[in-house]
Amino acid sequence: MSLFRVALAQINTTVGDLDGNAEKVRKGIAEAKAMGANLVAFPELTITGYPPEDLLFKPRFIADNRARLDSLIPETKGITAVVGFVDADKDIYNAAAILHNGKLAGVYRKMYLPNYGVFDEDRYFKAGHSCPVFDIGGAMVGVNICEDIWYPGGPTLHQANAGAQIIISINGSPYYAGKVGYREKFVATRAIDHGLYVCYVNIAGGQDELVFDGNSVIFNPDGEAMVRGKVFEEDMVVADLSLTAIMGHRLRAPLHRKVKPATLPDGVSAPVVHLDPLPAAQRPALPARKLETIEPIAEIYKALVTGVGDYVRKNGFKRVLFGMSGGIDSSIVAAIATDALGPESVIGIGMPSRYSSKSSLEDAQALAKNLGIEFHVIGIEPAFEAMLSMLGGMFEGTEPNVAEENIQSRIRGNILMAISNKFGWLVLATGNKTEMAMGFATLYGDMAGGYAVIKDVQKTTVYELARYRNRAAGKPLIPESVLTKPASPELKADQRTEESLLPFHILDPILKAYVEEERSYADMLSMGFSEAHVKRVISQVDKNEYKRRQAPPGVKITTRAFGRDRRLPIVNKYRAF
Amino acid sequence: MSLFRVALAQINTTVGDLDGNAEKVRKGIAEAKAMGANLVAFPELTITGYPPEDLLFKPRFIADNRARLDSLIPETKGITAVVGFVDADKDIYNAAAILHNGKLAGVYRKMYLPNYGVFDEDRYFKAGHSCPVFDIGGAMVGVNICEDIWYPGGPTLHQANAGAQIIISINGSPYYAGKVGYREKFVATRAIDHGLYVCYVNIAGGQDELVFDGNSVIFNPDGEAMVRGKVFEEDMVVADLSLTAIMGHRLRAPLHRKVKPATLPDGVSAPVVHLDPLPAAQRPALPARKLETIEPIAEIYKALVTGVGDYVRKNGFKRVLFGMSGGIDSSIVAAIATDALGPESVIGIGMPSRYSSKSSLEDAQALAKNLGIEFHVIGIEPAFEAMLSMLGGMFEGTEPNVAEENIQSRIRGNILMAISNKFGWLVLATGNKTEMAMGFATLYGDMAGGYAVIKDVQKTTVYELARYRNRAAGKPLIPESVLTKPASPELKADQRTEESLLPFHILDPILKAYVEEERSYADMLSMGFSEAHVKRVISQVDKNEYKRRQAPPGVKITTRAFGRDRRLPIVNKYRAF
Repeated sequence: MSLFRVALAQINTTVGDLDGNAEKVRKGIAEAKAMGANLVAFPELTITGYPPEDLLFKPRFIADNRARLDSLIPETKGITAVVGFVDADKDIYNAAAILHNGKLAGVYRKMYLPNYGVFDEDRYFKAGHSCPVFDIGGAMVGVNICEDIWYPGGPTLHQANAGAQIIISINGSPYYAGKVGYREKFVATRAIDHGLYVCYVNIAGGQDELVFDGNSVIFNPDGEAMVRGKVFEEDMVVADLSLTAIMGHRLRAPLHRKVKPATLPDGVSAPVVHLDPLPAAQRPALPARKLETIEPIAEIYKALVTGVGDYVRKNGFKRVLFGMSGGIDSSIVAAIATDALGPESVIGIGMPSRYSSKSSLEDAQALAKNLGIEFHVIGIEPAFEAMLSMLGGMFEGTEPNVAEENIQSRIRGNILMAISNKFGWLVLATGNKTEMAMGFATLYGDMAGGYAVIKDVQKTTVYELARYRNRAAGKPLIPESVLTKPASPELKADQRTEESLLPFHILDPILKAYVEEERSYADMLSMGFSEAHVKRVISQVDKNEYKRRQAPPGVKITTRAFGRDRRLPIVNKYRAF
Repeated sequence: MSLFRVALAQINTTVGDLDGNAEKVRKGIAEAKAMGANLVAFPELTITGYPPEDLLFKPRFIADNRARLDSLIPETKGITAVVGFVDADKDIYNAAAILHNGKLAGVYRKMYLPNYGVFDEDRYFKAGHSCPVFDIGGAMVGVNICEDIWYPGGPTLHQANAGAQIIISINGSPYYAGKVGYREKFVATRAIDHGLYVCYVNIAGGQDELVFDGNSVIFNPDGEAMVRGKVFEEDMVVADLSLTAIMGHRLRAPLHRKVKPATLPDGVSAPVVHLDPLPAAQRPALPARKLETIEPIAEIYKALVTGVGDYVRKNGFKRVLFGMSGGIDSSIVAAIATDALGPESVIGIGMPSRYSSKSSLEDAQALAKNLGIEFHVIGIEPAFEAMLSMLGGMFEGTEPNVAEENIQSRIRGNILMAISNKFGWLVLATGNKTEMAMGFATLYGDMAGGYAVIKDVQKTTVYELARYRNRAAGKPLIPESVLTKPASPELKADQRTEESLLPFHILDPILKAYVEEERSYADMLSMGFSEAHVKRVISQVDKNEYKRRQAPPGVKITTRAFGRDRRLPIVNKYRAF
């Protein structure tokens, strides 16, 4: 065998859906066989979905996951399949099963467990200490899992030293904007360093706050991408790897000989495991296929569509609703929801008050018409007046303040939740990351909802997304006036968001520096931001942690999202300036 | 020196309050000197407060913490002080500084980092590999940190082998009901195993969802508690340890000789560090002191008082308010808040609707009078009618369901938040753990608030707490009728919580088995619970994860609280039966 055909099954697993995930593996194996693949690989923790979090504390869940894996073994007659599962033996491991010709031929246990950012794997798993190489009819294949390939001295090195020509890396690698390029850099480097093929398979789809971007890819020993999977969509990525070419490459460019000392660390082994050779399969020619690429803003848009779409579908909702004010935030959420779920599943609710401008309502109506979605108008004045009169006694002698503003926002939250409770539709919250950071949002008001679509998207990016979506539509799907009028929550007369906060083009870079990059006060001043602005942003971000703690989940698209990615105390007397 | 006087400064640190925490250390050192102590020890991460969470990602925070530690060094003329801080050297460590006679004499770095339950220490720290023993004028003292002492083969063993007679264990050990007994068992065992004194110092106070129970304690080599600190309150715990008695004890009962092989694990060292001997100090006699003990239900009550009191004070609020319905939940919250903050800081709001019984309002009024707190009545009918008419169009042709019930609850949430926004008072949520588990609570309604006092307290325990509080008062502080009438949310006619859910005496044990103990379906059946009940509980707990994700923080009092202690996915298709 000089050409080894590898298939990467880039599937959309669902956490806890053991039967559904196993069924996807079954179909993937059949499809790979039909294509004459020697090996098919599935993403990290295929059977359980990723990340299963505290489901891993249920011994029955572990046993059920193993039973599903075992049910797949007979499907592998005539092929090798790499399937992620939880391996149990006194303790549990994040593992990959190597199923070969109807047998369980081996298990690889993840050696590097990430425990930073959104990851808590030290909470759940014990690390593995063996990284075998499987000799599959002369093709030398090393399997490892996600974080493992991030380390220059990790299992890829030991497997290469033990003779691996092909690395199968199975992943559950969550998306953020810019990650694909970052990731591909070092994955390609591993291929170059060790003179081998790296076959990288990832999940495509959403799980709570995370989206997985797919982008499965195969690098040749020169670090060139041979083929790349679709972005955020299921795909089967196939390539023929030349084993003879590898030997030639290694003789010609023997970098691997000097990369690192070849000694294994204490306790780590890298045995070679010989599997039964399989008869050559029927092989249809592979169709030519362009390398997938996508422009950065389109990628973010697609991440949001994937996140909300999968959250709604995987939780079994049929329709979504949200407050549609005619502002830019609810407008982009309307477009995203419509692209994710179809116009028949999307309901906008206009809820004007005495402070709402006529043009806002008109913009919302125009957008609903453009998108083809249902739109209802429910004025909030009767409830607002009732609330003011009910509170008249307690508020006597006080000046109007944020209390009266928030009452309106919370009446809107109540209306949306009432409709949700009545019909079983999911409420989407429409706040952006800039507001979340600054606390410029009403808890139980505009923050109310099951899923906050753009909570990790800064306001300036919201505008970019709207312009992108209109460009893609070839027409002003989102009315021009939505993009050009000044932002306002319209909770009192003549309110302007940029006057209450700071101009967005100033505010967003400061927020990025503080929230995403953890820049110090001194650093931020030397980046050219003004002292007054930086102090104001730090104070406001810090003191609004309590609001964010009660915010709905939403799609992570940056290196540091609010939520499990950023764990700040609420009681916190530290001041960073 | 044959008597070594140790002082344990059981202080209430605050996360991020570097100056405040350092000031408490300064005072503690002065107090210990006045008592003629040879050594004074402070709790884990004294300077930063515990747990500092992602504040640890700020390099300036680490530098500031170090500066505060350095400012304390000159205070230690004539004494040894053990102070928790974050040590930095290329990476960061959870560490203890040994300050001796005006110098930094050594640093111990925590070797065992907990990364389970509420702990995420692998996210932040690198583990240490050295466990020195300090020779302080002939007294051999080993210092280690919290989790370290939980391990039989941990630093205590190595320090004992290197000659330690006294172990100083500095802790940030969060409370749950029953933990004190559990903890003292093995801390006492370490003293017996190695024939030495163990001096255990803990924080006393609340931090977000955690409360620290104090209960600092000193065990002699027979594993007997010599002295124990106050429960949940600051204290200075002092005892004289006899070094000559230790030698006699070891010769008489040489268990330590055979406990474990004396070889150190690879890479771990246990050097002896000699410190300058100090002149003998003036020593007032120690006053006799009873060992603190507290009955279990009183301990839980005090945990709740501490949690809410510290959350309110440390966040700078002056007053709290909450919906006071005359039901058992809001009644116990009223009592706890009053005990924590004083009656002048507590405001109850009665918000009757068409479904509220007259007796409920009377009970609330009677309770407010008994507690001496402010009480206001704001009927919700005008807003409820306005909402129903506003939604009349959309709801046309539908039957009343949970939507109409929740509208009322959310109007109440809106009223409380409006008053909060107007006057700057903190809203307390009054839901209990049984409701939280079953989703029998209204998101943005009765779940609204900054702090959920009894969210980790099961309904049956709420009744126990009320009976305890009345017993302690020697009179029905909480009116008898509150304890005897059937529980009801009063959101529709003739509603009974135990009919909507299950009788609490059946429901609570099933919930404990499922939520706190992760018992499997089969296990629960063999515990004698009915199939129908168990299935219902599992389904309802699982499907309401989304609500709990948006709940306010509240005091953890069980082994497994909802929140960071229990991290379940929302998208989750696993069914445990």
